[in-house]
Amino acid sequence: MSNTHVPQRYTSLELPEHAGILGMSVRAAERVIEEARPGQGLLDLTGADTHCFPPPDWVLSDFAEAASGGGPTYTPARGDGAVREAVAANLTRFLAVPVDPERRLILTPGTQAALFTAISALVEPGDLVVLPDPDYMLTERICRFFGATVERVSLTLTDDGYADLDLDRLEELMRRRPRMFVFSNPNNPSGAVYSPGLIKQIAELAETYGVFVLADELYSRLVYDGRTATHIVDDERVRDSSLTLLGPSKTESLSGYRVGTAVGPDWMIDRMSDVLYVSAIRCPAYAQHTLKRWMSEDLDFVARRVAVYQELRDAAVSGLNSIPGITVPTPGGTSYVFPSFRELGVSDVEFCRLLKEEAGLVVNPGFQFGMNSSGHIRICFAQDPAALNDALARIGALVERISGR
Amino acid sequence: MSNTHVPQRYTSLELPEHAGILGMSVRAAERVIEEARPGQGLLDLTGADTHCFPPPDWVLSDFAEAASGGGPTYTPARGDGAVREAVAANLTRFLAVPVDPERRLILTPGTQAALFTAISALVEPGDLVVLPDPDYMLTERICRFFGATVERVSLTLTDDGYADLDLDRLEELMRRRPRMFVFSNPNNPSGAVYSPGLIKQIAELAETYGVFVLADELYSRLVYDGRTATHIVDDERVRDSSLTLLGPSKTESLSGYRVGTAVGPDWMIDRMSDVLYVSAIRCPAYAQHTLKRWMSEDLDFVARRVAVYQELRDAAVSGLNSIPGITVPTPGGTSYVFPSFRELGVSDVEFCRLLKEEAGLVVNPGFQFGMNSSGHIRICFAQDPAALNDALARIGALVERISGR
Repeated sequence: MSNTHVPQRYTSLELPEHAGILGMSVRAAERVIEEARPGQGLLDLTGADTHCFPPPDWVLSDFAEAASGGGPTYTPARGDGAVREAVAANLTRFLAVPVDPERRLILTPGTQAALFTAISALVEPGDLVVLPDPDYMLTERICRFFGATVERVSLTLTDDGYADLDLDRLEELMRRRPRMFVFSNPNNPSGAVYSPGLIKQIAELAETYGVFVLADELYSRLVYDGRTATHIVDDERVRDSSLTLLGPSKTESLSGYRVGTAVGPDWMIDRMSDVLYVSAIRCPAYAQHTLKRWMSEDLDFVARRVAVYQELRDAAVSGLNSIPGITVPTPGGTSYVFPSFRELGVSDVEFCRLLKEEAGLVVNPGFQFGMNSSGHIRICFAQDPAALNDALARIGALVERISGR
Repeated sequence: MSNTHVPQRYTSLELPEHAGILGMSVRAAERVIEEARPGQGLLDLTGADTHCFPPPDWVLSDFAEAASGGGPTYTPARGDGAVREAVAANLTRFLAVPVDPERRLILTPGTQAALFTAISALVEPGDLVVLPDPDYMLTERICRFFGATVERVSLTLTDDGYADLDLDRLEELMRRRPRMFVFSNPNNPSGAVYSPGLIKQIAELAETYGVFVLADELYSRLVYDGRTATHIVDDERVRDSSLTLLGPSKTESLSGYRVGTAVGPDWMIDRMSDVLYVSAIRCPAYAQHTLKRWMSEDLDFVARRVAVYQELRDAAVSGLNSIPGITVPTPGGTSYVFPSFRELGVSDVEFCRLLKEEAGLVVNPGFQFGMNSSGHIRICFAQDPAALNDALARIGALVERISGR
């Protein structure tokens, strides 16, 4: 049975067209990087160090109270009613649009599940979905899993921390009436923040061509230099034809609890709720309660964290730019930098393998975020400051060895 | 945008062929039942009272330790390596087959996600999947969501607590080379236990016709009268062409933590891991640690719980059978009884609506488990004993009113 039929949707996860760049499929390339010397005390730069930057104190106690009888074990697929009421009130303030807890909000097992259920509830095989390149590494795979074709729009991080999106290309693709435009704002992996003007232009194109917009705003509290994130749902032209994903997994370090939220039109929330019911039943019931104080009692906490992360960002950017052959603009948001190593003349797979085997560092290769983003690596700088400095020194030493070869 | 295109897979969730029985779609029928007088202090008999029957004491403390820095926040998609090692050792004892923690085991966000990822990784649109009727209420919807056609095999709970499956019909369907046979053992909703002889016959048919077997054994620790569950994976003929789902959500009351496991051939675990990565990233990281003592340090706990549940089962069966017009055999496992009310001459939707509106009780209607299982309700008897007795009295009073009309 080892050669049991492989369904098309599973095969589609592999992104085979990347093989031209990588010399192998995406999963094979990822495995080369993942499997190099596993478990040898490597420093993982793919996500934040949540031990160094833990969640607010009340998170675990609110969970424990719910798990000890304070909260129901079985909730509706879209989440506990009382939790949704609290979350909706806080999101109404954050987004500056009314969030109806019964009709326009769903709690999901992480933002990933929100992305997956949203795409599954809208795209048909053969549909076109448009994404920036680079953008979140699993969006294209989900679209392909459900039979959609993905086209990319080039995105660049400008020197002032904002996103420069190729709007001519976007309009060209919008004319083909894609089912969705999906984008992360701030952009994962580059840290580019979408300016109010750019958001307005995207909303206008979406309205003109009748395209649903999915805005992954997972990093919208993590913006620097006094910026604020612009929420596309604030534009009335797409209020009922967009979905906004938000969650406490990044800035607030709740990734281990697997909770997220989505705000959108009632028909979309209904569909996501039906899909969530068959795919996962519900967002973990006790963990739902960790959302009640989110975005209300954590304002000072987040302000302090953003200040600390901004210092780490500056250290990462200046450290990386001091390495000959590595260049990176300063991101306006997220906990990532996305430096280019194209001058070094090594492939993503080779550079990441060397980083792991010779420098003891695990990073995400650029190809994961889009075919045109190879020649970059994504580094999460939300690390213990000494560990980050050590990692930067190790990258410098490796690059020196590569350049001398 | 409210009339935005509805993809075929979403429409398939609705099980429209049920409309002939129900006079409406499944979701519409469910909503009639769900929406009757919400939140008026109803007694929910759709699941166990986890406040009355909580998990073992160490569950919350193991979670808290992991969440406080004792466990990693980011794990591989198939789960933390150390947790998988502990789980594999305990499952090897329970299943009596070697469970390789690296290759044959995945931790999932609830058993639901295991079912969803397994089906998505194997079925192609147009495939046939075979299920008993009745069986777990969401399996058919998942199959249809991924484009499969579902055919049912009649299952009856015998007077001695075992499953009587229509093997002639099963063979007839197996000849059509379905992609999978999916079954819950013990059966949800009827509580029927599959005998060793029946399991052997299923394994033989599966081998003969080359059909993959998915065994949902979520209730396999919850068997009564000294029975033990038979694991189909123990039959060498299907060891590499079957997947076994197990989890602590039912007997051990961990449903609120959203953790489950699947044991199967390496190629299937690899595929599920890839699908889980894009659909949910991973089983909640800290909750994974609640599995380490599962099936090793909870043996006495489970023995005591089974004894208590067996008394509740007996109270439910004798109470229901004392109501004229209601009949139910004694289940050999699970926390459910699945009484017939066919003699009353009311529909599932009407009876469940009356139970909610006039008796204050929420139960699952039979149609959710298969078209031929209408005229039944599923009652979870894992309730506070006084509440269960009160519920039985309320059902009796309602039935008396219906019969007198």
